[in-house]
Amino acid sequence: MSGPLSNLLVVDLSRVLAGPYATMVLADLGAQVIKVEHPDGGDDSRRFGPFINGHSAYFASINRGKRSIALNLKLAEDRRIFDALLERADVLVDNYRPGVLARLGYGQDVLAKRFPHLVHAAASGFGHSGPLSRKAAYDMVVQGMGGIMSITGTPDGPPVRVGTSIGDITAGLFTVIGILSALHDRSVTGPRNGGGQFVDVAMLDGQVAILENAITRFAATGESPGPLGSRHPSIAPFASFRCADKAITIAAGNDDLFTDLANAIGLDASDPRFATNEARSQNVDALTEAMEARLQTKSAAEWLTILDAAGVPSGPINDIAAMVAHPQVQARNMIIHTHLPDGTPVIAAGNPIKLSGHPDPAVRPPAPALDGDRDAILKALGLSPITPKDTEHG
Amino acid sequence: MSGPLSNLLVVDLSRVLAGPYATMVLADLGAQVIKVEHPDGGDDSRRFGPFINGHSAYFASINRGKRSIALNLKLAEDRRIFDALLERADVLVDNYRPGVLARLGYGQDVLAKRFPHLVHAAASGFGHSGPLSRKAAYDMVVQGMGGIMSITGTPDGPPVRVGTSIGDITAGLFTVIGILSALHDRSVTGPRNGGGQFVDVAMLDGQVAILENAITRFAATGESPGPLGSRHPSIAPFASFRCADKAITIAAGNDDLFTDLANAIGLDASDPRFATNEARSQNVDALTEAMEARLQTKSAAEWLTILDAAGVPSGPINDIAAMVAHPQVQARNMIIHTHLPDGTPVIAAGNPIKLSGHPDPAVRPPAPALDGDRDAILKALGLSPITPKDTEHG
Repeated sequence: MSGPLSNLLVVDLSRVLAGPYATMVLADLGAQVIKVEHPDGGDDSRRFGPFINGHSAYFASINRGKRSIALNLKLAEDRRIFDALLERADVLVDNYRPGVLARLGYGQDVLAKRFPHLVHAAASGFGHSGPLSRKAAYDMVVQGMGGIMSITGTPDGPPVRVGTSIGDITAGLFTVIGILSALHDRSVTGPRNGGGQFVDVAMLDGQVAILENAITRFAATGESPGPLGSRHPSIAPFASFRCADKAITIAAGNDDLFTDLANAIGLDASDPRFATNEARSQNVDALTEAMEARLQTKSAAEWLTILDAAGVPSGPINDIAAMVAHPQVQARNMIIHTHLPDGTPVIAAGNPIKLSGHPDPAVRPPAPALDGDRDAILKALGLSPITPKDTEHG
Repeated sequence: MSGPLSNLLVVDLSRVLAGPYATMVLADLGAQVIKVEHPDGGDDSRRFGPFINGHSAYFASINRGKRSIALNLKLAEDRRIFDALLERADVLVDNYRPGVLARLGYGQDVLAKRFPHLVHAAASGFGHSGPLSRKAAYDMVVQGMGGIMSITGTPDGPPVRVGTSIGDITAGLFTVIGILSALHDRSVTGPRNGGGQFVDVAMLDGQVAILENAITRFAATGESPGPLGSRHPSIAPFASFRCADKAITIAAGNDDLFTDLANAIGLDASDPRFATNEARSQNVDALTEAMEARLQTKSAAEWLTILDAAGVPSGPINDIAAMVAHPQVQARNMIIHTHLPDGTPVIAAGNPIKLSGHPDPAVRPPAPALDGDRDAILKALGLSPITPKDTEHG
């Protein structure tokens, strides 16, 4: 792969999502990523649906462009291979529960001493410090604990999970930023204090970090904000609104845009209840009612044309089929093509980081078979191929 | 600020959220960030609630630790200052609508030629290419268009927005990754082809990139997935469940954890309907019913103690007050302290990227007053202080 990170070697012990999402981003930017998987079945997400022809399309989408070697870190001969990988690697990523890697003999103190050039990033549920450090977490648990579920959904409805694993994915993104920051540091200062840096990212911390104004709203009022359906807490109008056939989004983030909106849909822009964002926020129910009375006179498509012409930020509420087919999504190469182990083509989300100095391929290499790159990896390390003791479990 | 990025100078033309969130992450990691604001009021979000003593706590939280100079890029004397900043800067961030910066005379072609060392990152609604490139967007619009609203909420409920501006925030995170990748590239190869790199991140693209398995579910079935309330689409049990008093989250991501869960709550682990994740996913309604019949015999707090002891990933659904007070959040320094212009203390989300080589201060410097650092910035540039022509509008 070409890309800005093409001189980096990443050794990836992680499974399922937070770590693999981080290394997917790195691989999409050109880094060479070697998944080190347990011989007994490898990454759990190889067994996660949806399946196409018996192959996990989920695994294929997150692990495209990586390579795989199966190693049992409890066996001496496999540790020898792992050590050789770490000698060459720039980055080690794991998302074990804190303590697990140390029990395998690769605690941060050991890594910093033996591999002082190595940036070690650990994405875990709760992080490597604090009273819950050793507790297991999945996305669902940190979405609940981190507060985002308490502000998502309708005011009187049940708790709602964000429909994607935002707990894992934001942790993955912060992990990438931590890795690249530590590598920047290494390029400026060299290995620090005789040891490589440790990047410690907790899924729970990532949930706190994306709460935007919810924390300051709590700070300002002493009360926990609740869910607001599709409405923004401090900007109005900034929500979904029903037209004759279905809902659209409208976001008039300042007074000029509100005037443009009012003129476009035939609302009285001089109504003092709607004169400023603060007034509109205080009178948001009356504003919504007045807007929907007008919007229900035409279809969503008709209003979107009118609002676009008036320069008012607005859009459809796309389902996944409509999003995938959308001309802008297609033009931006945001649906890429890869394939399953049997050659079946499959689509996945593309790389949202477009760089002027590098191509943005529409076709990406497939995810690896478990241990599928053993011989090539051993050869590159100058080691002779050894059949692992326990691939019969794989 | 100390931190891994402390040798970087970032010039920030961006406003409101996607760009400012990106530069907040950079500042938290030690980069020196100079906000270049329009003299006529500066960053729009200075006027966004919530307010404390008349000061925007929203602005304070996102812009902590940055500095500010007010420049009108249409005035020659202010352009001279801006040019001097770009001469020294490593990174320029903007989130103008595509085309605006070019009309000001700072299009990417000009920047690449005049400032070949400079990484220029643009976070925009739809990106710098494609049919909608020049269309305005806010978070609400890209949440609607990008598909996440179509998979968030309850199956028969209204469209639901993720309760935080995930459209801006993910674009901000991808922008940081793009910037650090381009800087890595610069450190390896030097300025490319006589020009600095352009990082082009679209909020809509970021929404597509975080959809996780929704795209592969569509690819596998040809049907758009819908919202599932609090439930994960392909893992069961992985949702919120009602106890006697309130709901908790439980996430048993594999068969061993399910057995532990079943034993802990008194469910028959040998029920063939629940034998594998695939079986549990197919029988998720029966599973939920069976689990809640047991869970409603005790309170949430009692069950969380039992599930913790059994090692089953689970947790409370915290509101913001409970999250802020949570011992793990506190232990991880995820609620930091800064202050408003009048000295009033205010809390904000901390930095989720914990690095072994750098401190993680619990107290962060405040957000700047508009133009508050003019003299110091001009002095550092070796320019004599000039009173800007139009600060009377500020």
